[in-house]
Amino acid sequence: MHRRGNVARMTDPLFARVQSSFDRSSMLATLGARLTRVEPGLVEIRAPILPGSRQQQGFAHAGLSFTIGDTAAGYAALTQAVPGHEILTVEIKINLLAPGMGDELVATGRVERAGRRVSVVTAEVVALTGGTSKTVALLQGTMMPVPA
Amino acid sequence: MHRRGNVARMTDPLFARVQSSFDRSSMLATLGARLTRVEPGLVEIRAPILPGSRQQQGFAHAGLSFTIGDTAAGYAALTQAVPGHEILTVEIKINLLAPGMGDELVATGRVERAGRRVSVVTAEVVALTGGTSKTVALLQGTMMPVPA
Amino acid sequence: MHRRGNVARMTDPLFARVQSSFDRSSMLATLGARLTRVEPGLVEIRAPILPGSRQQQGFAHAGLSFTIGDTAAGYAALTQAVPGHEILTVEIKINLLAPGMGDELVATGRVERAGRRVSVVTAEVVALTGGTSKTVALLQGTMMPVPA
Amino acid sequence: MHRRGNVARMTDPLFARVQSSFDRSSMLATLGARLTRVEPGLVEIRAPILPGSRQQQGFAHAGLSFTIGDTAAGYAALTQAVPGHEILTVEIKINLLAPGMGDELVATGRVERAGRRVSVVTAEVVALTGGTSKTVALLQGTMMPVPA
Repeated sequence: MHRRGNVARMTDPLFARVQSSFDRSSMLATLGARLTRVEPGLVEIRAPILPGSRQQQGFAHAGLSFTIGDTAAGYAALTQAVPGHEILTVEIKINLLAPGMGDELVATGRVERAGRRVSVVTAEVVALTGGTSKTVALLQGTMMPVPA
Repeated sequence: MHRRGNVARMTDPLFARVQSSFDRSSMLATLGARLTRVEPGLVEIRAPILPGSRQQQGFAHAGLSFTIGDTAAGYAALTQAVPGHEILTVEIKINLLAPGMGDELVATGRVERAGRRVSVVTAEVVALTGGTSKTVALLQGTMMPVPA
Repeated sequence: MHRRGNVARMTDPLFARVQSSFDRSSMLATLGARLTRVEPGLVEIRAPILPGSRQQQGFAHAGLSFTIGDTAAGYAALTQAVPGHEILTVEIKINLLAPGMGDELVATGRVERAGRRVSVVTAEVVALTGGTSKTVALLQGTMMPVPA
Repeated sequence: MHRRGNVARMTDPLFARVQSSFDRSSMLATLGARLTRVEPGLVEIRAPILPGSRQQQGFAHAGLSFTIGDTAAGYAALTQAVPGHEILTVEIKINLLAPGMGDELVATGRVERAGRRVSVVTAEVVALTGGTSKTVALLQGTMMPVPA
């Protein structure tokens, strides 16, 4: 079991740091995304495929997978940033592997190499359907810390 | 003046083809995006920076620039696809050049090379503020036609 | 010990298929690269940092890391391609994590999702120095099978 | 006629700055590449498709297009860097549009946005055959200045 309970989360300064930034990002609320796991160098974000988050065939829009994947990767970098800094996406690339359909999308962002000036990050987005999981997107990008 | 008037648009089969797909994509409605220009190999999409489309500092979320850039690029490929086909994003990369702020974001997607199996596309996203325009993102990606 | 001995390699049809293509690619000989591991969906290529493969500071040129990373990823896709096909790189992105220095570079390419029309691949390039290894590059790309 | 004559080049401090770094990069000599144009924010590099620069079908290896495209883009950033700095590639992505064949490859790198911490660059690689030119690759990446 990777996710910690609500009580643990609220008393975890690392989780609180990320949640505080997350809560100020209205796009994430629009998409129904929520922060579900924060560890040093790793952040997980989950989002339903809302009726308003779809492409023309009814699957999750690539913009949804991108948004939660980019955000999970950026916040993974935030867990390793010095205090008083935010994270900006310099660039990020997404490969789409399968249509986004199912109960929920789960994005896991990871820091591959933390640097003082830039960090290299990846994210995987999987779709959960019942008990099964399928990778729908892989992202690889560059994040930059900036004073908040 | 690049944009054609509403009457011209409605009678333009190419514009109608793209608009028909656009209208079935709920994510674009959620973000307030609209289709404003369609030519062979080129599509323009505009979106306001809605209160619900922002990142933690109040600028446009990268997910907004990505979504309209990816969509403009994909629909640019659709203008050159054989009838009865939709376009899927295979992959796309975004470089973020400046914070997304201002009155409106304008994404212009272009086909760089049309292929039978895949097409290479680019998109530029600019922010309009009053009479000035500033590039906020550049995208480069790969699109694939699939039977609708 | 991951690498199989020379005898095993020569009698392995999968290794032979990749080696046959590898031997016809003069760029790999120019860079001193050699094929060291072939499994379904995974290929490893090693190359020294030759005096003629360097950038202005004396480290491995990004072009060396790219070439062996791209090739390992492409040949990983070849291991899953139907007979009579070659693999073309549609696109690939490289993030450079550290200067390429040491005794040897080792690129490991992997298929992340095999598709009939395109496959998504990744590669990691590490530098070996004495007994230690350091990641110098991560690649993520798209490969396409074409009739030979 | 874009290229300036040899005399003009040798007396141009900007050309000399780039040529000095170029001459210390042995990989470029191995591939037969030469610096042919330097302007603020723009660098052109040309390379023949040497017998030793090919992939398994006899076309230019993607590693050749990548190397001259990446180098042209990086040196374009160098033309705008403060004195005493070199340029490192943070990341770069290449889309391959057509097989690299013909008399010569020409890479033109451009700075799309110069920044203090990172710059966004693009490059186009074309193949020249007789009097005709065909785009074989497009690159988009991120460069970072570092003290030399």
